[in-house]
Amino acid sequence: MLQPLKVALAGLGTVGGGTLKLLDAGKERIRERSGRPIHLVAVAERDSTKLTGLPLGGAAVFADAGRLADEADYDVLVELIGGSDGIARTVCERAIARGRHVVTANKALLAHHGTALARAAESAQVSLRYEAAVAGGIPIIKALREGLAGNAITSIYGILNGTSNYILTTMRKTGRSFDDVLAEAQRLGYAEADPSFDVDGVDAAHKLTILASVAFGCAVDFKAVHIEGIRHISPLDIQFANDLGYRIKLLGIARMTEHGIERRVHPCMVPLGTPIAHVDGVFNAVVVDGDFVDKTMYEGRGAGEKPTASAVVADLIDIAAGRVAPTLGVPVSALKNIPAAPMDRLRNSFYVRLMVVDRPGVFAEIATALGEHGVSMESVLQRGRAPGEAVPVVLTTHDTEEGALGLALAKIASLGTVVETPRLIRIVSLDGAN
Amino acid sequence: MLQPLKVALAGLGTVGGGTLKLLDAGKERIRERSGRPIHLVAVAERDSTKLTGLPLGGAAVFADAGRLADEADYDVLVELIGGSDGIARTVCERAIARGRHVVTANKALLAHHGTALARAAESAQVSLRYEAAVAGGIPIIKALREGLAGNAITSIYGILNGTSNYILTTMRKTGRSFDDVLAEAQRLGYAEADPSFDVDGVDAAHKLTILASVAFGCAVDFKAVHIEGIRHISPLDIQFANDLGYRIKLLGIARMTEHGIERRVHPCMVPLGTPIAHVDGVFNAVVVDGDFVDKTMYEGRGAGEKPTASAVVADLIDIAAGRVAPTLGVPVSALKNIPAAPMDRLRNSFYVRLMVVDRPGVFAEIATALGEHGVSMESVLQRGRAPGEAVPVVLTTHDTEEGALGLALAKIASLGTVVETPRLIRIVSLDGAN
Repeated sequence: MLQPLKVALAGLGTVGGGTLKLLDAGKERIRERSGRPIHLVAVAERDSTKLTGLPLGGAAVFADAGRLADEADYDVLVELIGGSDGIARTVCERAIARGRHVVTANKALLAHHGTALARAAESAQVSLRYEAAVAGGIPIIKALREGLAGNAITSIYGILNGTSNYILTTMRKTGRSFDDVLAEAQRLGYAEADPSFDVDGVDAAHKLTILASVAFGCAVDFKAVHIEGIRHISPLDIQFANDLGYRIKLLGIARMTEHGIERRVHPCMVPLGTPIAHVDGVFNAVVVDGDFVDKTMYEGRGAGEKPTASAVVADLIDIAAGRVAPTLGVPVSALKNIPAAPMDRLRNSFYVRLMVVDRPGVFAEIATALGEHGVSMESVLQRGRAPGEAVPVVLTTHDTEEGALGLALAKIASLGTVVETPRLIRIVSLDGAN
Repeated sequence: MLQPLKVALAGLGTVGGGTLKLLDAGKERIRERSGRPIHLVAVAERDSTKLTGLPLGGAAVFADAGRLADEADYDVLVELIGGSDGIARTVCERAIARGRHVVTANKALLAHHGTALARAAESAQVSLRYEAAVAGGIPIIKALREGLAGNAITSIYGILNGTSNYILTTMRKTGRSFDDVLAEAQRLGYAEADPSFDVDGVDAAHKLTILASVAFGCAVDFKAVHIEGIRHISPLDIQFANDLGYRIKLLGIARMTEHGIERRVHPCMVPLGTPIAHVDGVFNAVVVDGDFVDKTMYEGRGAGEKPTASAVVADLIDIAAGRVAPTLGVPVSALKNIPAAPMDRLRNSFYVRLMVVDRPGVFAEIATALGEHGVSMESVLQRGRAPGEAVPVVLTTHDTEEGALGLALAKIASLGTVVETPRLIRIVSLDGAN
């Protein structure tokens, strides 16, 4: 039997508490699967009330995570504080500088500083692991980094934020508005008091940034992600989507194209026949397309105390067992410099919702504006009549370049008969895993 | 840069050819992800015509796999010959005895001799890997063994045989009979000339045996699997299933219960609301339920040249990178001796199809027989009338023990008004991944 792996854990929030519970309840199993025991030696938490009821064993307790990182005697530091900078970043950097492994659930940190941290870990010859940062308990980082490692990945996409998926699902099932459902989700504790990271797509973009880097072997580049959230999705859009045979999902999509790597997070119309269209509520799902494996899909709980703890502990077991892999799948020196594909070169079909004054000739004006920019309409739908009043009109386009549609919509928005900013949702044709 | 990993490959059928293609086409990527090159040094294939067109490089060619195993200079032997015994088993045993790693796609071999081979690999301190043996390109063995290693797994189930799933899907979509669809699948090359391993559930049982062992940390025990195939599924059953809100799927199910481990492969009625109900055609899907991670689902192509090659090469990359894990997730000495749960203690609701003579009093006789054995009926359905003739009657039961239903059905089969052996399909209530 090898020496125990000594773990110091910073941050005893939901995931920290779950990790302690799993290390305690699964002790024997974890020892068998690791080949040695995993011992909690120290924790850091500012709020001492959070210690109550947790299986701390004989672990030393620090109020200051920085001191934990610098002074405790550990092999691995588990960072569960959160935030792209500040103390979370500091403790990871200091642990690495001391030659210790790091396990983190911090997607913002990785999305902003992943390449630098990977470089630091590599020169210190330590592991930096972050399975818990993406899609909760689903072992998607391991699948990409190891399980599919023979493949050239051509695309990866998925539902990466459970809160926004829960809101979209509830809007669809109840017909209620975004604001109404968000307020309820906040009351129920499914959404944060400040929900913007979730509903504005930032959290999903953090995760997509990490996935794209591991999938394509390129540097972590959060700034390259085009981000739109779900605040402007109306019950009307959800109803129209249903009538047209789609579900609206907030997807993160990364694709290798002839123009470079696309990285984007935005609401999508997903065909009902696609498996990912049926991933509802707080669940996450990721589809990976590789040149040999074809499409594989991974689905499960994307957040929460226990699923996230499952991912943290899997990383600890790998470290205990001596299973080593470069942080981003390949050594930092081998990361490729692939340009970001410009959004206006993106080809899609589109759903566009306009509020137009219901009078003869309006459709002709709109169709003319589209035609002038080479955008070909697939369908147009008007529900109900209200002569002289504003009514919603929905049109879908054939496959077109985003830039061309943008120009056409600018023209359409300037028509006197169009009374609100046109709303655009990309229709994605995902062949899905079947 | 470390020394190249030297690979000898036995068996150049579909998967062998795909593996050579991937090792060649992905050479640079594989080197980056492995930390060293993977070199093909030798192959063995009896049928020399299969060598044509394959990227053999300078590999030595053996006609006899036994000689390859004994004489070639390799670090890893890749066994892609197939079959639970004979030459496939011999080459694996000899490679291990020579202190060489083994990668295999051979589910029959693992299902029958997995524990013995794991023991041999452990004492020789070599890796024995078999990601390609279960669910093709889906990295499900890695997910279980490493990605979910912190969890106590409570159940694992899935669609593990693409051929039978293709046949059931086609029967549903076309209304045609099993024999008719099987014959067509054979003409199209989707089913073997001797289809029994696929349609009688044996292939799925091989895979389930392996999954159960890794999930529960117990010895590989093929004989403990209850196996039923799909030959007796009629278009009538598929139609009734649809009317009742189910799909018929051939599932492999392993569950930890108070009576021991259930391991069973049989057709199931799966509720339409379950994600796995929508996994059609040649696709495979596996759902794993763990105490911390909850349910996660994995879906993709379960067979074929390229997906299976993806799994073989992932195993080679792990070996090249020095990532080591016990063959069955835990050391052989730690494998638990858990009894097999007897099938007659299994609780389910059931679908039963009877052919009965359409005359007054028949339902009462059937209901009485069920009642006498404590089986409570949920619904009964008769389509059409034909007084005095045999007509199909379908009943579904509430949750009941399989043993009790068996006794009731024996009684029912003996009634003069029941003209065929009752057909039974278990209704599974899988909560799915969402």
